[in-house]
Amino acid sequence: MKEKLLPGDLTFAGPYPRLSRRLRLGIVGGGRISVTQSAAARLSNYWEVTAGALSSDPAKAKAKGAQWYLPEDRCYTSFEEMAKAEASREDGVDAVMITTPNHLHYEAAKAFLEQGIDVLCDKPLTNELDEAIDLIHLAKETGLVFGVSFVNTSFPMVRQAKAMIARGDIGNINQIHVEFMQDWMMNESINEAEHVKWRLDPKKSGSTSCTGDIGTHAQNLATFVTGLPMTDILAQMHVCGAPKALEDTVMMMTKYNHSIPGTLMATRLASGNRGGLRLRVYGDEGGIEWDMEFPEQLKFSVHGEADRVLTRGQGGELFPSVERTTRLARGFTEGVIEAWANLYTEFALAVAARRDGIEAPSDWLLFPLVEAGAAGVKFSDATVESHTKGGSWVSCKLNL
Amino acid sequence: MKEKLLPGDLTFAGPYPRLSRRLRLGIVGGGRISVTQSAAARLSNYWEVTAGALSSDPAKAKAKGAQWYLPEDRCYTSFEEMAKAEASREDGVDAVMITTPNHLHYEAAKAFLEQGIDVLCDKPLTNELDEAIDLIHLAKETGLVFGVSFVNTSFPMVRQAKAMIARGDIGNINQIHVEFMQDWMMNESINEAEHVKWRLDPKKSGSTSCTGDIGTHAQNLATFVTGLPMTDILAQMHVCGAPKALEDTVMMMTKYNHSIPGTLMATRLASGNRGGLRLRVYGDEGGIEWDMEFPEQLKFSVHGEADRVLTRGQGGELFPSVERTTRLARGFTEGVIEAWANLYTEFALAVAARRDGIEAPSDWLLFPLVEAGAAGVKFSDATVESHTKGGSWVSCKLNL
Amino acid sequence: MKEKLLPGDLTFAGPYPRLSRRLRLGIVGGGRISVTQSAAARLSNYWEVTAGALSSDPAKAKAKGAQWYLPEDRCYTSFEEMAKAEASREDGVDAVMITTPNHLHYEAAKAFLEQGIDVLCDKPLTNELDEAIDLIHLAKETGLVFGVSFVNTSFPMVRQAKAMIARGDIGNINQIHVEFMQDWMMNESINEAEHVKWRLDPKKSGSTSCTGDIGTHAQNLATFVTGLPMTDILAQMHVCGAPKALEDTVMMMTKYNHSIPGTLMATRLASGNRGGLRLRVYGDEGGIEWDMEFPEQLKFSVHGEADRVLTRGQGGELFPSVERTTRLARGFTEGVIEAWANLYTEFALAVAARRDGIEAPSDWLLFPLVEAGAAGVKFSDATVESHTKGGSWVSCKLNL
Amino acid sequence: MKEKLLPGDLTFAGPYPRLSRRLRLGIVGGGRISVTQSAAARLSNYWEVTAGALSSDPAKAKAKGAQWYLPEDRCYTSFEEMAKAEASREDGVDAVMITTPNHLHYEAAKAFLEQGIDVLCDKPLTNELDEAIDLIHLAKETGLVFGVSFVNTSFPMVRQAKAMIARGDIGNINQIHVEFMQDWMMNESINEAEHVKWRLDPKKSGSTSCTGDIGTHAQNLATFVTGLPMTDILAQMHVCGAPKALEDTVMMMTKYNHSIPGTLMATRLASGNRGGLRLRVYGDEGGIEWDMEFPEQLKFSVHGEADRVLTRGQGGELFPSVERTTRLARGFTEGVIEAWANLYTEFALAVAARRDGIEAPSDWLLFPLVEAGAAGVKFSDATVESHTKGGSWVSCKLNL
Repeated sequence: MKEKLLPGDLTFAGPYPRLSRRLRLGIVGGGRISVTQSAAARLSNYWEVTAGALSSDPAKAKAKGAQWYLPEDRCYTSFEEMAKAEASREDGVDAVMITTPNHLHYEAAKAFLEQGIDVLCDKPLTNELDEAIDLIHLAKETGLVFGVSFVNTSFPMVRQAKAMIARGDIGNINQIHVEFMQDWMMNESINEAEHVKWRLDPKKSGSTSCTGDIGTHAQNLATFVTGLPMTDILAQMHVCGAPKALEDTVMMMTKYNHSIPGTLMATRLASGNRGGLRLRVYGDEGGIEWDMEFPEQLKFSVHGEADRVLTRGQGGELFPSVERTTRLARGFTEGVIEAWANLYTEFALAVAARRDGIEAPSDWLLFPLVEAGAAGVKFSDATVESHTKGGSWVSCKLNL
Repeated sequence: MKEKLLPGDLTFAGPYPRLSRRLRLGIVGGGRISVTQSAAARLSNYWEVTAGALSSDPAKAKAKGAQWYLPEDRCYTSFEEMAKAEASREDGVDAVMITTPNHLHYEAAKAFLEQGIDVLCDKPLTNELDEAIDLIHLAKETGLVFGVSFVNTSFPMVRQAKAMIARGDIGNINQIHVEFMQDWMMNESINEAEHVKWRLDPKKSGSTSCTGDIGTHAQNLATFVTGLPMTDILAQMHVCGAPKALEDTVMMMTKYNHSIPGTLMATRLASGNRGGLRLRVYGDEGGIEWDMEFPEQLKFSVHGEADRVLTRGQGGELFPSVERTTRLARGFTEGVIEAWANLYTEFALAVAARRDGIEAPSDWLLFPLVEAGAAGVKFSDATVESHTKGGSWVSCKLNL
Repeated sequence: MKEKLLPGDLTFAGPYPRLSRRLRLGIVGGGRISVTQSAAARLSNYWEVTAGALSSDPAKAKAKGAQWYLPEDRCYTSFEEMAKAEASREDGVDAVMITTPNHLHYEAAKAFLEQGIDVLCDKPLTNELDEAIDLIHLAKETGLVFGVSFVNTSFPMVRQAKAMIARGDIGNINQIHVEFMQDWMMNESINEAEHVKWRLDPKKSGSTSCTGDIGTHAQNLATFVTGLPMTDILAQMHVCGAPKALEDTVMMMTKYNHSIPGTLMATRLASGNRGGLRLRVYGDEGGIEWDMEFPEQLKFSVHGEADRVLTRGQGGELFPSVERTTRLARGFTEGVIEAWANLYTEFALAVAARRDGIEAPSDWLLFPLVEAGAAGVKFSDATVESHTKGGSWVSCKLNL
Repeated sequence: MKEKLLPGDLTFAGPYPRLSRRLRLGIVGGGRISVTQSAAARLSNYWEVTAGALSSDPAKAKAKGAQWYLPEDRCYTSFEEMAKAEASREDGVDAVMITTPNHLHYEAAKAFLEQGIDVLCDKPLTNELDEAIDLIHLAKETGLVFGVSFVNTSFPMVRQAKAMIARGDIGNINQIHVEFMQDWMMNESINEAEHVKWRLDPKKSGSTSCTGDIGTHAQNLATFVTGLPMTDILAQMHVCGAPKALEDTVMMMTKYNHSIPGTLMATRLASGNRGGLRLRVYGDEGGIEWDMEFPEQLKFSVHGEADRVLTRGQGGELFPSVERTTRLARGFTEGVIEAWANLYTEFALAVAARRDGIEAPSDWLLFPLVEAGAAGVKFSDATVESHTKGGSWVSCKLNL
């Protein structure tokens, strides 16, 4: 009898269901972010890490694999090798996370898709738009699940913001401001470090650095929460710090749905800011503000009334679909790893549904898919185009 | 013997000196802001309100004058009348504040300057740039003091920020962000109220509404604190709320000294924001952030160190020139009226120094002068120009 | 015809009325707090400072008087002299503020009351309870207005808290916590300074230092906002810093109405706190929190709902009686001087009503009266009694 | 050859070492907190959940075990059965967590200790002091690791506070204030729920409810951070809400080392507070404040300087021993589950060291041991004693 992962009495409301077994996750790329994501996958209780391509150096590959107690024969030195070997195993990985430098995303994702393995790929999805579009097609053709790791849309209070705006709590949106302010590049010597160097190398990072890395997070967050496509931008890229090959700062004016105005900024040189991803959405009846440095709180104002602070876990005013993504009571803080765990939970459910041959309920599938990844690539391309034209309005909408 | 206002043993350090008598202030314009400023002038202990042109309706003029216990014969119905009558009195006003609707600023200011009376004029200084330039010339010719009421530069912690940046505490500035977010126009019915109506009437408000009213505050604050001229802007004006003759929102990218990039925003439709004038300046060694809704605190970060919060009144780290502008110990909050009182204190000292025929020390003259007002008019003009061109870089620098 | 201060068409709702002339205020005591209060009195627009007993040294008395532009003949060197001289002048002071060291309050207040002059006296009202009670009797006998300067009850958001609790917004109160945390005495060398020295001298400060000085503020605030008398305390006094004659810290458990429990703390050695007067009141339906370092905001929670932050000036949810005490729109901050100005406004109205022979509406008379001052003295006495008994419950209720 | 868990080249500095295999964890007690702890144990990457006694009902035991993918034969219905069965398995659990209602802690812990299995037990350790002391002896005799789940001391910024105070950053401590304010019991109907009911039943919860449950957290946190024993208390227990068998609120004055004064409060009825565990420690040179609702930040003040906010992950000023407990960069928030994971990491290292027969470095053993648990039981007993005596000073120091 065919393995069945989801329970027979699957309901679409209430908590996420348990699977009949934990899913097996492979890791492609051995950087810091793979550690965070693996830990989060374990926290979700839906995944075990069972294989990895963590370095092209065999010794390093094994040493890094030992962190996850991987058997040596599942510590690969290339993703091609890993894709083939795992696909042929009875107990091969159910899915992989890809966290290599940007320029390898496309080949790696393709390799696994072609072997029938579901993929969760880091952002930016690719450096070239045609590669991104190719991945969309490949995902569609294979029917596989292809997620992209825009993790910020998996914070409970971001979900709450989206649901409140959809319900009309702030009325018609009149402007949208989003920014991602960091400061880690102020110490410019860090740019020589191996794990940073590639981010400033156009061959690996693509035609943008800050824009693709964190600007896309801002774009993804704003469009997710408002439910509006970002259609037009007027952008300027800047090297605010020491001279370097790619921008460390980007500022732009934006339009959603060709009409609603906004701003978007991203920089790595804003001293005192590190996780400063901040979204502000104002409508004709109220406004919503969220700050990733204080992710448990959602500021909500209705004009003429006292400001309100909704807190994760408070009950009453939270939507059931949001409560499903929280683990602890109000006041007992959750953070970024829990948001990652939410993403891995939903990814697991999507993988399980696909394997079981059923359609997962849409409110289990709020995690970002390959199309969101491609929209980010288009956004980066448009940024470069607008900047090159000296700051002109250009379309940033991905037409598929 | 000629009256002497400043003490003979005038020193340039330490607290501001007392005058030999309080100065006499006249009020031109009977709106809310004139009440705030008059109260602040009284608080400063340098001024008495002794005359006013508070309405063109004689009964209203007297009724409003009674608020300040003005004798009836000094409750005028026109500024021309007031200027002449007061100039001819032995005990005539030493100076006037002008808080009429924008389109009257020029004529009113001129009337008093021509009578030898010092002026503190509301912003925007004028609706037309040539009028603003004319006032600069007039002030220079007459040798009179001409202040402009950009009050925000008189907050102690704004002064502290300016002094810290000048000392190099944040290193070389690499980007500057400033915004003024309000929400009072969300209730659009307010736009029919008499005290708002004129702000949306191009004949009275000029070619901008939000830009001239609060955008100029943002521009003035950023240039004051950084000591850098704003030279170029790329602006878009928006009607985010109900249809109206002038913009309620403006967004722009900016350059200081033709090179340092930044952003500037102003809107009256950002629910949950009322006094949201916020400045962020980042340099290669640190950053400074200030928010008018919490004006007593200055966030200061040095990269790699704990964030710091400087508080008004804390001693040690505050410059003596800043301590001079504070009245209470740390933790006993001061607010906007105290900032106004600082402006009126410095205006009084400038008036006294002019009358005594001496030069006031430059650190008593940090209050904004007519040139700052004209820079604001140029800024508004440039905003309209850039917007009209569909969002192009234009110069906003006032060349005198 | 007898002078009439209040308008004939006196209404009890809406803004405070203007008087037919400003009242004349005398200052007794030349310390820092007299400067703050005089400035606030001017800001209120109800008072002029016209006389003072600012030092027993004639030269100093004149020099300090010059700060307020007092004529030399109204710069007295003793309050006895001042009381007599002013009472005999046609244009004598309408009222005095008393800000001498504690041990002189009684004699000074008595001197003015006996001359028919209304009094606003600093806290603690007296060092001895029988003196305080004597002043209550004297005020009653003379029919004069006797205010006590517990300024914190004049903050708009404190008024709002009181009105909300009275309306039942938090249900039945179940516990009350109040504290006043400062840190200025950490630099113990300050204790040798003239303006501090007396605060640690039992002959001048009485049997407590920190308790009488700031503990009474905490007690006054909690009882004002909740409308409940503090009836019982169990207290311990501490010298947490360098050895000194009187306590620098006090901690206690409290009961209101003999049943509702709470805590009260005051200290001058809590590093990082300066104006840390914080009140927290919890009821069976909600809670209210206020912090003097952020006086414009009132935290209000209803169980199961989002936390709310009410802000001064926001309209809608503020009571008209509270809006009357605010000067600026929301977001344009007010501070301690504005609270003082509110106290001086209400004191002026009370004085005017007494002089006009009419009864002022009760909601104009929320400023603290002599009875509140005496309750503070009883509170200090009870603190000493409980402490001396090694920490026992004692009554702190003033029975008149 | 004997299994070796820790690496041969064990160093005492730097990151925690990996083990040669994950440890096997058993769960005793099937409530919510066991879910949180199991997830955290997984997150730590040191543990697998492999067995459980999650209910006395066999069906429920299996259903709950399925959440952790436990085989049916390792889903026990009693801890006695589990202790014996697991001890006899080759692959039996290395340790258990105990999260049953309080009154079962003793018997459960004993059962596992007697089978040679290490224990991490929920707090309060026991309801009776002699049981707690018995467990101390049993742990000593068996040489087993016995941890107690005071999780709050595993937050990175709490560790930082402890290290800074030990280094003398705030000088000599002069007062200590700690409180744990919650509001979940405001909805008193919750008290009938199965998972709450036992907390108000003296037979199961012991002679206190709020004190043992959260008061002990406050006591543990304050003594951990300051390194000072709490020696004396003067306490009052209150039923602030609806009538109930045990207190819902406790307030006390405290002494550390018989001399340094402080306060401690705990309540479940403070509307708007949920995870309000707040510690404030003031010394003669500075102060430190921490709030569990914002656990990533540590407020630090040095008298006369700007306030500082240290943030987890910021580098420079964090001790290496603290950095070892953090997973993400500054601004990417961690929360309670990460603190739990830190506790489970250190517990794993202690278990591994015991099994390897080596002594673990003391800075790996900052997690709370059985003695801290017993100190909490003594604290609860002393609270009852002081309260019963009407509020008298009693000793709360555990003498072993």
